[in-house]
Amino acid sequence: MPTVPINISILGSTGSIGTQTLEVVDQFKNSLKVVGLAAGGNLNLLRAQIKKYQPKVVSVREEKDAKRLGVLWGDSGNCKIATISTADKVVIATPGLAGIRPTLAAISAKKTVALATKEVLVAAGDLVTREATKHRVKIIPIDSEHSAIFQCLGGRTVEEVKRVILTASGGPFRGMKANQLKNIKPEQALKHPNWKMGAKITIDSATLMNKGFEVIEAMWLFGVPFSKIQVVVHPQSIIHSVVEFVDGSIIAQMGPSDMRLPIQFALLYPGKREANNFRRFSFSDFATLSFEEANTAAFRCLSLAYQAIKTGKTAPAVLTAANDVAVETFLRGKLPFWRIADVVESTLVFHSAQKYSSLEELLAVDTWARETAAKFVVKFGHK
Amino acid sequence: MPTVPINISILGSTGSIGTQTLEVVDQFKNSLKVVGLAAGGNLNLLRAQIKKYQPKVVSVREEKDAKRLGVLWGDSGNCKIATISTADKVVIATPGLAGIRPTLAAISAKKTVALATKEVLVAAGDLVTREATKHRVKIIPIDSEHSAIFQCLGGRTVEEVKRVILTASGGPFRGMKANQLKNIKPEQALKHPNWKMGAKITIDSATLMNKGFEVIEAMWLFGVPFSKIQVVVHPQSIIHSVVEFVDGSIIAQMGPSDMRLPIQFALLYPGKREANNFRRFSFSDFATLSFEEANTAAFRCLSLAYQAIKTGKTAPAVLTAANDVAVETFLRGKLPFWRIADVVESTLVFHSAQKYSSLEELLAVDTWARETAAKFVVKFGHK
Repeated sequence: MPTVPINISILGSTGSIGTQTLEVVDQFKNSLKVVGLAAGGNLNLLRAQIKKYQPKVVSVREEKDAKRLGVLWGDSGNCKIATISTADKVVIATPGLAGIRPTLAAISAKKTVALATKEVLVAAGDLVTREATKHRVKIIPIDSEHSAIFQCLGGRTVEEVKRVILTASGGPFRGMKANQLKNIKPEQALKHPNWKMGAKITIDSATLMNKGFEVIEAMWLFGVPFSKIQVVVHPQSIIHSVVEFVDGSIIAQMGPSDMRLPIQFALLYPGKREANNFRRFSFSDFATLSFEEANTAAFRCLSLAYQAIKTGKTAPAVLTAANDVAVETFLRGKLPFWRIADVVESTLVFHSAQKYSSLEELLAVDTWARETAAKFVVKFGHK
Repeated sequence: MPTVPINISILGSTGSIGTQTLEVVDQFKNSLKVVGLAAGGNLNLLRAQIKKYQPKVVSVREEKDAKRLGVLWGDSGNCKIATISTADKVVIATPGLAGIRPTLAAISAKKTVALATKEVLVAAGDLVTREATKHRVKIIPIDSEHSAIFQCLGGRTVEEVKRVILTASGGPFRGMKANQLKNIKPEQALKHPNWKMGAKITIDSATLMNKGFEVIEAMWLFGVPFSKIQVVVHPQSIIHSVVEFVDGSIIAQMGPSDMRLPIQFALLYPGKREANNFRRFSFSDFATLSFEEANTAAFRCLSLAYQAIKTGKTAPAVLTAANDVAVETFLRGKLPFWRIADVVESTLVFHSAQKYSSLEELLAVDTWARETAAKFVVKFGHK
């Protein structure tokens, strides 16, 4: 263990990734120290975290909460947490587009970014990776699939990569044909076979849109063209992802479905791997690992993600915005499951993808996409 | 591709590994150049190799053959090939104990060793790795399992390793109980499900002794204690081996059953991975990967190997010598399959393991073990 701890700031500390990040910190008290926390509205939990970890700086989402706690708030608060002078590493786990601004701030301040928020690279991958290259900042993924790819690459270059294989559990509706997806209820879609996650990401897993997002993230994180990124359905979720190299050798990363593993890897990187008390995978638990092709005819969201990244520019931001609106409406019981793809597709068709150079331009496109998707939701929704 | 080629010497150039090494050389003509060849008795093939690759120095096993070809011969010839001044890397694929002396010579001459001959580390791992450490020489494995472990480690240290999992196909008699192994004929044992190999190693695969040897090799190659090396039966032979790290992350290496892949890796290491025209693995070819525990009650040779390495000193050399004698007798139809383990076990029981500091001492033990095993072969053989 290093005697000088790694100082970390956590944005989204009361969420699923945030709390698990703190569990990792608990395991490595000598190596990791919390210097900043930013959270949303769960003030009780945040208070407990402040008491326990004694961060230097704290921020919340709302001004009124900030005044009650005597802490910072909003975008500027988030950006402060992301740029604390003593912080070495910034964990970005703030949900949605709100993660982009603090990510850019952390990059400008030359902090290593441990990235959990999908939207940061899905919507703004172009902008964020350009800034990271400019400031020579490393973005370390916290997602289990991307952590797997990172580990499989083991420092090898993109030219050595033949193919990246992103594994997908297939979600609760794996094996279903398009017409079987017509009467899916939110309760059914919320039952993910392997991972316990928030409602939004669980639905995205059921539509395979989540896997589409991961293709886009992988492209930006590793500089691998999307044509070299393949999705393979692997129902056991034991192999988290795979890299095939040009020489024919294939490296896979596996483990239990426990987000604390990729979090630990990201927090301690590039340090040594350290023992923990998290549960372990045993080959005798999973006597069989199986693989099948993704059914893009039934799960059209995956194809739409490839289409959006092929179009590029602002199209992926439209993809994620329209999907947000569609999934939210589905969860309210106002949109059939199979219409999520229709809303996203129609919004993409209506969009003229354009180059963008600032977050503001991107946020304007996001607003447009949400408004447009809202119209399609009405069109495709339950009458 | 580097413009300065890597100069290689190949010992055992007309054997299975030797000829496949030359196929790899054919693929990377700009990166690899053959400067030395040593072979056994296949003079026609050796002549063709000399003509094609124009090595600087050549050696054969027998003096009479050497005189006909005007080349070097025997142990001294082998050692000359292993120490050619311009050679950067020496491929050791000479079968049996004959591989030890040129390996030690190559190490003394500070050549990187690409090691295929199992006996070098099984019998003399202690001596060979001590010399390699002393001369700061890297031993790169050519075996598919050890190449897999090497690739999975990706430069990480032994302290980061929780467990090495060596996969075993289970051989042709996988799933059989001890009493079902009693009437096995050599023809049956020679049918390996996944790999086409020589007769001796095919029988060693059928008894799982080969996997026991690989445990011992892995211990010496990677400095991992044998208690952390586990054998898991994986009938498809797609995952070539696995490393579990202390943090719970598991890295596996997979690929088609093609020895040219680990050969290429060893020859080009530490250079970049390069594309080749060897056949590729596709997940759609193997929809299911399965795992099961090794049945050490039926396949006692695996336990005997663990026992030998636990005893240490000269015991592993006795293990391989006694096994040689037993397998050779089985192949001649003079020893029942299930008695191979009895011959090895009895020879080990009769042996008082001793420390050794020279190859000569080890060779004396080898002679003793072969004579002793020959007696047990008579005892346990067909009347």
